[in-house]
Amino acid sequence: MAKNKTSAFKAVILAGGNGERFWPLSTPERPKQFLKVFGGESLIRQSVSRLAGLVRSEDVFIITSKDLVAATRKELPEIPASNIIGEPMRRDTGAAVALGAGVAGDGVIGFFPSDQMVADATAFRHTVSLAAAIAARSAKIVTIGIKPTFPATGFGYIDPVSKKFVEKPDERAAKGYLKAGYLWNAGMFIATAQTFKAELSEHAPALLPLVENGAANLAKTYEELPKISFDFAVMEKSSNVDVVPGDFGWDDVGSFSAFDRYFPHDSRRNVREGPCTVVDSEDNICVARSARISLLGVKNLVVVTTPDAVLVADKSKIAEMKKLFAK
Amino acid sequence: MAKNKTSAFKAVILAGGNGERFWPLSTPERPKQFLKVFGGESLIRQSVSRLAGLVRSEDVFIITSKDLVAATRKELPEIPASNIIGEPMRRDTGAAVALGAGVAGDGVIGFFPSDQMVADATAFRHTVSLAAAIAARSAKIVTIGIKPTFPATGFGYIDPVSKKFVEKPDERAAKGYLKAGYLWNAGMFIATAQTFKAELSEHAPALLPLVENGAANLAKTYEELPKISFDFAVMEKSSNVDVVPGDFGWDDVGSFSAFDRYFPHDSRRNVREGPCTVVDSEDNICVARSARISLLGVKNLVVVTTPDAVLVADKSKIAEMKKLFAK
Repeated sequence: MAKNKTSAFKAVILAGGNGERFWPLSTPERPKQFLKVFGGESLIRQSVSRLAGLVRSEDVFIITSKDLVAATRKELPEIPASNIIGEPMRRDTGAAVALGAGVAGDGVIGFFPSDQMVADATAFRHTVSLAAAIAARSAKIVTIGIKPTFPATGFGYIDPVSKKFVEKPDERAAKGYLKAGYLWNAGMFIATAQTFKAELSEHAPALLPLVENGAANLAKTYEELPKISFDFAVMEKSSNVDVVPGDFGWDDVGSFSAFDRYFPHDSRRNVREGPCTVVDSEDNICVARSARISLLGVKNLVVVTTPDAVLVADKSKIAEMKKLFAK
Repeated sequence: MAKNKTSAFKAVILAGGNGERFWPLSTPERPKQFLKVFGGESLIRQSVSRLAGLVRSEDVFIITSKDLVAATRKELPEIPASNIIGEPMRRDTGAAVALGAGVAGDGVIGFFPSDQMVADATAFRHTVSLAAAIAARSAKIVTIGIKPTFPATGFGYIDPVSKKFVEKPDERAAKGYLKAGYLWNAGMFIATAQTFKAELSEHAPALLPLVENGAANLAKTYEELPKISFDFAVMEKSSNVDVVPGDFGWDDVGSFSAFDRYFPHDSRRNVREGPCTVVDSEDNICVARSARISLLGVKNLVVVTTPDAVLVADKSKIAEMKKLFAK
């Protein structure tokens, strides 16, 4: 793969979020990657900015849904408009990675989520550079593994010895993984275009047309695609995986509990964003984006108001937000 | 007191509520007596209507705050405008009763709160008629005692043997009162104008100017008045008290818990008024007057939204609403 060593490093940002986990702050029209509550700038803006110096703007590609192309182009004006590609329908990350590989073309390509936080961008770039160097010299998909801080059941894991991917565990299995030194799968994948194509060809041939045709004729192609994650389609099956451990203050900002990490607390551990009156209440996350919220004698709630919706949820049930949309 | 037997029975409705207990549905500008959620009509409208046949419209007087006079006149167009009197400032029910006695003039006068529910208006009128007849033939303040259904700490009680008033008890005392057959003080007082004057003269002489001057020169008079309830000023001290037990489905509609009595419940005991989505949640009162409310995994909450405010309170803390306004 020596010929790729001199190619530019390209980045594909996966921005297919559907706005459910931060509803009603985020919505299908303004999903999580557009949230500006964490770090002042939108998460997608931060995701692109932290690659500065590592990838040229013209080598950054964004895969998003067709309804979000205009908003994404507005948010990222330095990226060529034709690099921001809208999927005609949701087909999970399997299709998005294949499409990204198709449009990015030759060279080493890194795939990155659009909705994560990184505290130390310099350390992040060092880790990604190392992963890209390994990818350029091997036929492996190099992933970045995050040292777990708790037995999360919401992430997949990577065994750094066998380089095997394992899917989201139950809590008991997660505790075992922590003991064994497994790392979190942060959803970042770095490999040459050839390697992506070879791995897709072997494990998910249905996705190959996207690699071959790029953004041409998407509507017709997508309709026939399986809805499958890249983890499940490729990473959990492939033997050509490598891992670079990353330690750069990674946070997936996965749910409202992120407010507890990024906002100051009052003396009774309440987070208040916007006009919140709090009496005899503790451990709540209160986010007022319309009328003032008054909390009286409540504990452990997430209360969020926008002009369009009011959410009152127990913190422990936040992972079950999808149930609200099923109604 | 035989001369009063032929006088018309007069009614004074005490409508001085400040809108705190049903906030944010009620507000200082639209206090509880204007709420239409219970029984379709406003509580003050119902309070006047249930006296029909017992009191002529021109013999109904309303004591309210000066800011609510216009709204009250609009709500009760059949009552002469000059019978609807605004207090210049809040001085509790002591002043309101004295003022009512002053403006109502001679005869038997009944005082009634403006914000209660009565299920059986016919039985109510029978009870009030009996109380008025006793009042006309005695020098007593006749009160209507409600048979308690639980050891309430939010009401005063009346001992039907000694005819003594006792103030709001703690829970232990309340249980003793129930055992002893005490009745709830529903805040209804019936007596001749002379009796009211005599009792005020003896126990609360500071309030006498109101009885003598009626609505004249109120601003100046009120400023110097003590802030004291009629129960405390007179009823708990007087020996001239009588009690007529009432059984007409009385409810003081004292707090949001009234929603549990007046609205249907879903299979998990939630009350829903307006657009409420409820998932894995039970025993909540959800009142949506602006955006849709979504409840996820919560219990025993009162959640109320209006365009101006959002309340999220534990049901058990609803009695402590005042703490919110202190902030």
